[in-house]
Amino acid sequence: MELFNNYSFISCNKEFHSADTIIFGAPYDGTSSFRPGSRFASSRIRIDSYGLETYSPYLDKDLLSRDIHDAGDLDFPFGNRDLVMRYIKEFVTNTIHHNKKTLMIGGEHLVTLPVVEAFHHKFKDLVVLHFDAHTDLREDYMGEKLSHATVIRRIWDLLGDDRIYQFGIRSGLKEEFEWAASGHTTLNKFGYEMLDDVIHTIKDRPVYVTIDLDILDPSIFPGTGTPEPGGISFNDMMRIISKLQALNIVGADVVELSPDYDSTGVSTAVASKIIREMLLVL
Amino acid sequence: MELFNNYSFISCNKEFHSADTIIFGAPYDGTSSFRPGSRFASSRIRIDSYGLETYSPYLDKDLLSRDIHDAGDLDFPFGNRDLVMRYIKEFVTNTIHHNKKTLMIGGEHLVTLPVVEAFHHKFKDLVVLHFDAHTDLREDYMGEKLSHATVIRRIWDLLGDDRIYQFGIRSGLKEEFEWAASGHTTLNKFGYEMLDDVIHTIKDRPVYVTIDLDILDPSIFPGTGTPEPGGISFNDMMRIISKLQALNIVGADVVELSPDYDSTGVSTAVASKIIREMLLVL
Amino acid sequence: MELFNNYSFISCNKEFHSADTIIFGAPYDGTSSFRPGSRFASSRIRIDSYGLETYSPYLDKDLLSRDIHDAGDLDFPFGNRDLVMRYIKEFVTNTIHHNKKTLMIGGEHLVTLPVVEAFHHKFKDLVVLHFDAHTDLREDYMGEKLSHATVIRRIWDLLGDDRIYQFGIRSGLKEEFEWAASGHTTLNKFGYEMLDDVIHTIKDRPVYVTIDLDILDPSIFPGTGTPEPGGISFNDMMRIISKLQALNIVGADVVELSPDYDSTGVSTAVASKIIREMLLVL
Amino acid sequence: MELFNNYSFISCNKEFHSADTIIFGAPYDGTSSFRPGSRFASSRIRIDSYGLETYSPYLDKDLLSRDIHDAGDLDFPFGNRDLVMRYIKEFVTNTIHHNKKTLMIGGEHLVTLPVVEAFHHKFKDLVVLHFDAHTDLREDYMGEKLSHATVIRRIWDLLGDDRIYQFGIRSGLKEEFEWAASGHTTLNKFGYEMLDDVIHTIKDRPVYVTIDLDILDPSIFPGTGTPEPGGISFNDMMRIISKLQALNIVGADVVELSPDYDSTGVSTAVASKIIREMLLVL
Amino acid sequence: MELFNNYSFISCNKEFHSADTIIFGAPYDGTSSFRPGSRFASSRIRIDSYGLETYSPYLDKDLLSRDIHDAGDLDFPFGNRDLVMRYIKEFVTNTIHHNKKTLMIGGEHLVTLPVVEAFHHKFKDLVVLHFDAHTDLREDYMGEKLSHATVIRRIWDLLGDDRIYQFGIRSGLKEEFEWAASGHTTLNKFGYEMLDDVIHTIKDRPVYVTIDLDILDPSIFPGTGTPEPGGISFNDMMRIISKLQALNIVGADVVELSPDYDSTGVSTAVASKIIREMLLVL
Amino acid sequence: MELFNNYSFISCNKEFHSADTIIFGAPYDGTSSFRPGSRFASSRIRIDSYGLETYSPYLDKDLLSRDIHDAGDLDFPFGNRDLVMRYIKEFVTNTIHHNKKTLMIGGEHLVTLPVVEAFHHKFKDLVVLHFDAHTDLREDYMGEKLSHATVIRRIWDLLGDDRIYQFGIRSGLKEEFEWAASGHTTLNKFGYEMLDDVIHTIKDRPVYVTIDLDILDPSIFPGTGTPEPGGISFNDMMRIISKLQALNIVGADVVELSPDYDSTGVSTAVASKIIREMLLVL
Repeated sequence: MELFNNYSFISCNKEFHSADTIIFGAPYDGTSSFRPGSRFASSRIRIDSYGLETYSPYLDKDLLSRDIHDAGDLDFPFGNRDLVMRYIKEFVTNTIHHNKKTLMIGGEHLVTLPVVEAFHHKFKDLVVLHFDAHTDLREDYMGEKLSHATVIRRIWDLLGDDRIYQFGIRSGLKEEFEWAASGHTTLNKFGYEMLDDVIHTIKDRPVYVTIDLDILDPSIFPGTGTPEPGGISFNDMMRIISKLQALNIVGADVVELSPDYDSTGVSTAVASKIIREMLLVL
Repeated sequence: MELFNNYSFISCNKEFHSADTIIFGAPYDGTSSFRPGSRFASSRIRIDSYGLETYSPYLDKDLLSRDIHDAGDLDFPFGNRDLVMRYIKEFVTNTIHHNKKTLMIGGEHLVTLPVVEAFHHKFKDLVVLHFDAHTDLREDYMGEKLSHATVIRRIWDLLGDDRIYQFGIRSGLKEEFEWAASGHTTLNKFGYEMLDDVIHTIKDRPVYVTIDLDILDPSIFPGTGTPEPGGISFNDMMRIISKLQALNIVGADVVELSPDYDSTGVSTAVASKIIREMLLVL
Repeated sequence: MELFNNYSFISCNKEFHSADTIIFGAPYDGTSSFRPGSRFASSRIRIDSYGLETYSPYLDKDLLSRDIHDAGDLDFPFGNRDLVMRYIKEFVTNTIHHNKKTLMIGGEHLVTLPVVEAFHHKFKDLVVLHFDAHTDLREDYMGEKLSHATVIRRIWDLLGDDRIYQFGIRSGLKEEFEWAASGHTTLNKFGYEMLDDVIHTIKDRPVYVTIDLDILDPSIFPGTGTPEPGGISFNDMMRIISKLQALNIVGADVVELSPDYDSTGVSTAVASKIIREMLLVL
Repeated sequence: MELFNNYSFISCNKEFHSADTIIFGAPYDGTSSFRPGSRFASSRIRIDSYGLETYSPYLDKDLLSRDIHDAGDLDFPFGNRDLVMRYIKEFVTNTIHHNKKTLMIGGEHLVTLPVVEAFHHKFKDLVVLHFDAHTDLREDYMGEKLSHATVIRRIWDLLGDDRIYQFGIRSGLKEEFEWAASGHTTLNKFGYEMLDDVIHTIKDRPVYVTIDLDILDPSIFPGTGTPEPGGISFNDMMRIISKLQALNIVGADVVELSPDYDSTGVSTAVASKIIREMLLVL
Repeated sequence: MELFNNYSFISCNKEFHSADTIIFGAPYDGTSSFRPGSRFASSRIRIDSYGLETYSPYLDKDLLSRDIHDAGDLDFPFGNRDLVMRYIKEFVTNTIHHNKKTLMIGGEHLVTLPVVEAFHHKFKDLVVLHFDAHTDLREDYMGEKLSHATVIRRIWDLLGDDRIYQFGIRSGLKEEFEWAASGHTTLNKFGYEMLDDVIHTIKDRPVYVTIDLDILDPSIFPGTGTPEPGGISFNDMMRIISKLQALNIVGADVVELSPDYDSTGVSTAVASKIIREMLLVL
Repeated sequence: MELFNNYSFISCNKEFHSADTIIFGAPYDGTSSFRPGSRFASSRIRIDSYGLETYSPYLDKDLLSRDIHDAGDLDFPFGNRDLVMRYIKEFVTNTIHHNKKTLMIGGEHLVTLPVVEAFHHKFKDLVVLHFDAHTDLREDYMGEKLSHATVIRRIWDLLGDDRIYQFGIRSGLKEEFEWAASGHTTLNKFGYEMLDDVIHTIKDRPVYVTIDLDILDPSIFPGTGTPEPGGISFNDMMRIISKLQALNIVGADVVELSPDYDSTGVSTAVASKIIREMLLVL
């Protein structure tokens, strides 16, 4: 007779100090303009992760052989965006200080910004791989500089040209596509044909990977704030992650699951499996 | 052959200047701590209002004989709570300046604060009738002074003792109940037995009415952020509104419908009918 | 080892000729103006009826001791309202010819008209008891004489004054309430306080009972086209049916369940239990 | 501070007389035999269209540079199919008279018939491109000549052989496939391999395009009356629309979204994006 | 900055040995005949319990002043009913051995049987208070002696006459009602009018309380396997629990929440609040 | 005027003795570990099958020309797994005795075991084709030998090496993949590339085909207990079934539809069409 009383992603039950990787949740969705609810992603993913196997037949690796600590969710003051940003940055800065990698479960895409700030503080030559349906390159959104729709532009403010690689993009303003094309980011419209070349270019520089799950086609991932048909398939995502093994990834995030919009539970299952795979390549 | 191309609550189609009452939406839910989504209330209510009759058998009055303008929804910058507060206050201040009454459709309960500020600027002896399941009397919520959980406390900061009457309250911290009981507000636990006396006390002073729809039992109103069983019935609410006819109401709001949490559409139908009745007693 | 392969309401498995009562479905919803879907009511009710007990503790009677035949559903040509009306009338006329009572499962409320026509042909002194949230007394609806919103007016065309008794009514045009009040029908607003007197008045005249399930409060019956809060409770309905035992009921119907709008299944469970009770008092 | 009070598809806000294209809704679903609800498509699409960008990265065109008027929805008498047909025909005839193109949002597929009648009155050499999962070629359906299942056959009655091109067809009676194959229509089973040749054949003759959205695979478009697995992908539809730019399209429709059957909202998002693309090629 | 990583019912975070009450989950639904899913109750209740206040305005008591340990969920071998029964009995026997009270979250109603067996082993004069819509008094169900439909009969096998008090019962076979009435149990049909007398009779004998949540009306509790309209209200349940304070309760359970059948989340909120109140009277 | 009162899969209305194929339901889900509900599959499939055409454009065959009897559902004692196994085996043994083929609708995957036992009793050289996302090769699951997660291992106990062919497999323990790879079964990871060779190898030996519908990608089949992204498409399944025409199939099953988890109804439509196609190749 056994008892089940875990609060962790499946098998991520090492102590903080004996772990090399920290997984944590950032349940913030305060700038979502269409449909909120990504705040519920991390707790739902943890529960449903127990429907997963720890073994990946895609990578032929097993989570059971990894040392990962699930720190739980950051506890945010709703309505105060700037304080949320600060909490995330402090947590990740401390984690980096202990020489650990991080995998963050969003929340909306704005939560990526403070994490990149923390990593950039340590890794000045950081590059960012951005998987998404949306450009996220607006200078501001309804006057706001900090928004899910501006997050990559803010990261560019930090990193500058030739450091951001965008894949799967199929929605944005005309000006955003033009701004990217004028040399600020490398933008792969619709798919990820350029990924092999990009990996070859990056070599062993430190890489942060941010996956907005709406890069996936809404047929397999309807549970998100702004579904955009025409996305990549789950098997495409498995191929991408497999390729990422060649890189020196220092941190990653998986954002924009809004589980209540998919009552079938499939979106949560997809997010959980992508997290398992990302943990296996970190 | 006719075309339907209205964007207004049913029959609220007068021009701004010929109307005596303005209805508008404040689709903000940025401090919701449990389940967001009240941002969708006003647009859903407008659509479903066309399933209503304009005639109320409860009050034996008809919306067709009223002069009401539906101004649409305020357009907010998501993530910037303070700017949202300012926009609402400016809009209502302007409306009061034109000697019109307002009925606001929330959004979460925090949107009530700037409206009360605007009315208090004109009516120094304003009293507030507060219908709700929750006390909303916290000094702060996770460190934040401006929150759906603190909104009545902030209104008390403005109005002081003996100006706030609370009905239907059935959830809160022990300290909140004690703070109210120490003389700051008049709090009717669970029901509205004290309403007749309160109306008698208020006499013809200007009154603002704020209805958090979660005062209703979740059996008839499940579509809200924090459902609290044990609430009043729809017929209780009809009786309350009928009694309010005796007062000098200068403005009102109906907040905290979160329509996506009730796929049956009943919560939206309930909210729409309560708005019709409130418009008929304004 | 047994097999389940029934297509009938629970225990209504007698042959047509040995039954005294015929239950059948009329899955038509062609004039529904707000939300269609009552076409699915009869087949869903049959399936879920197997979650019911055959014994009623309300009436202390058991369906097992009754002789009822479930004829299945009439098969309608969608889009041709007039032919649908004819099919229903022919079926019921034939059933009456064999001296059987009928219980029809709607469909929308318009399906009641042809049944009343058939019964009126045989019983010239027929009276109609109408349980509903809506008046259904319009002379026409968007120019149409035959509509769910006009059905009781059409029945009045047939029966004339003092033959129609309406209960639970809480929504309609001002003119409809006034027309009823001018002596055409007996209309009990909101509840059923007048039922005892009405039963006393009717005595042993032949009675047709039509139950639009939206008379119930949407808290217990959300699965309907136009939910109207403020309705009667399920226990009220049990009390009503118990009182109906005193009457000479020749036929009845239960209409306007739209099961897809209530994913909890409760509305279907409610409809099934009301049908069981009505079968026990026929 | 701005107000949102539009009732139009995104950016289709020109006046009737200054527009070259008219978009309107035909919310009729009276002959739907399986699951109704396409009556809700146009109003839901308008609301959700504000989650779209106006810029298409597929066509590199922007709705902001187009002159389109959204006329709203035709207001129909439910239950009277023949009057509905007449209203649609009158509206479109008037629009053609003003030399404007139309894009109609259904409703069920039968609404296409009166539009084609109106266009055929002006363009005697009209050809019809029909995208659908179903043949829609029955001579009658349960005795009815006018039905969603007979609509293309009725159009053939009007246009005759060699004028109708069908794509994506994967469901129908054996007789329908045989009737098409005997030379009456050009039918591309399952996909759209023949589209290039068809475009080459049509040249610059006037073309009406009718898109029954169930041509799409239900993985990406579950919100429809009769979902048929095995359909084309969203990217296939983007490729088709891109090819249509070579044609002289005078009118188009997008039918059979039944939004309530897809609680994720993805089907509505898909329909909205297809409408944006069709408007950009009109 | 704080982290949230609890797996316990709100504030039930004492260690086993310093607690006087143990709460645990028994997620078994293997004999559910109509709709399974009560296996998900305990984990959903724990998550949603964080939407609750710890303070009860009904009892004027606060969970913060109690010493309760949440042991988590028993981990069951699906498909092996008899082993499930044994695991529960062993766990509770051990808990009783440490002189602690238990509150079990079901699961279906059969899980009550092994708990009562364990308590009866220690308390020979145990009486059982049974709150339920259903009699649960069948001798067998489809040949099976151990079933949710037979559980109270099995408890009677153990305790004998005059030891079981049933409230709220409104569904069952005619034979079950007759068997109860012949002196085997005290059965209060529909309501709880006899509760005061029963409490007076029981005096200070040890009491086990089993609450099948379907005693509640499905308007407020639709999320259960077999919803039965006509149940008691939430406020009735609050009154019942308040009365239970007069008794010497040694253990209790709350069973038959099936959360997936109520997408509004209200059923889970109701269950959580009832558990809070029961913990406060244990 | 016609009546609809069938309880059969569409057009499977021959008598038992004049049919060559028997279709029946096995609504058991007692060992489902994640999400139960496959018990509802067979009754939902029968209803929705009337939205299907009998003609398959994939195979150019029509169900109208086949002689099939729908026997209904086996009626099971919930909670008694071993008795359920016996009932299924007895039913199929009797059917085989009358020289008929069977198509079983599950239920969870464990129901396949007694059917294979029955067929193996007659056909000693039986081979099994297994289409699934999961290996189902565990020696035990939480100590239980009989479980949905062990069913193919139990079949191997019966048939031994080189008799089981697995396709589409993408989830399992590392040990299961290794056990298969060590020569016990032929396992095609992810897809079905080996199917042509397997068919060539099998030749005319008697074949049993078991289709766990979760082999399909959850984009097109979300309504199942444990959705696994990365599955095959519906068109892949059509191609597989077309290839199966070359084999000597003596029986088949289609399991693990859990219809309540897909409110769009698409999963049920997919299952129904696969059953139609399987019936056409039996």
